[in-house]
Amino acid sequence: ARPKVGYVYSKKGQNTLKYKSIKEITVGEIKSKPTVVSEDMSIYDSIIQLFINDTGTLFVENKGYLTGAVSRKDFLKITLGNTDIHKVPVGIIMTRMPNIITITDNESAYEAARRIIEHEIDSLPVVEKVKTEDGKEMYKITGKVSKTTITRLFVELGKE
Amino acid sequence: ARPKVGYVYSKKGQNTLKYKSIKEITVGEIKSKPTVVSEDMSIYDSIIQLFINDTGTLFVENKGYLTGAVSRKDFLKITLGNTDIHKVPVGIIMTRMPNIITITDNESAYEAARRIIEHEIDSLPVVEKVKTEDGKEMYKITGKVSKTTITRLFVELGKE
Repeated sequence: ARPKVGYVYSKKGQNTLKYKSIKEITVGEIKSKPTVVSEDMSIYDSIIQLFINDTGTLFVENKGYLTGAVSRKDFLKITLGNTDIHKVPVGIIMTRMPNIITITDNESAYEAARRIIEHEIDSLPVVEKVKTEDGKEMYKITGKVSKTTITRLFVELGKE
Repeated sequence: ARPKVGYVYSKKGQNTLKYKSIKEITVGEIKSKPTVVSEDMSIYDSIIQLFINDTGTLFVENKGYLTGAVSRKDFLKITLGNTDIHKVPVGIIMTRMPNIITITDNESAYEAARRIIEHEIDSLPVVEKVKTEDGKEMYKITGKVSKTTITRLFVELGKE
């Protein structure tokens, strides 16, 4: 989805852009579709999903809730070792909640970028907090913001 | 290296940033150090270099000139197949010049981001054109600009 960005081209200088702060652009406006697999999918099949969807990070769900994430880097490390990637499920190697950095729709694109740089990750899942029947707090995944999303926004902001 | 960005915080609104256009920030100001290996390094050793330098793309040189590039995605594809990664050199699997999208120091950060999005790549080598003794035009690699570089610049621009 193309981000909608409120900017105004200034007539003062050829190269001066004036626009609503990047802190006012929300995650909800720029997020893209996440690729989600289930915990019991094999590592091999998960890598195939990574290629089919041409994405850098897979998010992992169990019963509709976000439980983990796996990056291209994690997969590359695993394929170098002795793990039987056709048998071992992705749930075994993923980074598991609560060790995943997330973001929500109403936070800013700026905050998403800041979190990506601070935590040295490629991608953040966009989540919605929900309470389960037994009162636990869980996350539903509704999108993602990656370095690609931010780079695309940067290009969008510079268009005249 | 921290990008130096000429921006001025506007007093008009809490969230208004006014700064030199992102088209005036040059690649030379924001580029980072590239990880470079030689064509005859094995695929396995190249992947180790990728991890040691925590980078997403390796650039490949022969006799001091840029000859190729290999991404994390390329390596992951290879490790799934039957290639003997301890024996086959990285020069065999790399994307070879002239099929590599490059950029130069005096082009803009904006142009770098635009090229990354347009060509769906993670990283651009920053190059300097040189003439060899026999009159051939070759490239020396002096840095790189990646989605990480652009995301970091985006964060820098938003700092108050």
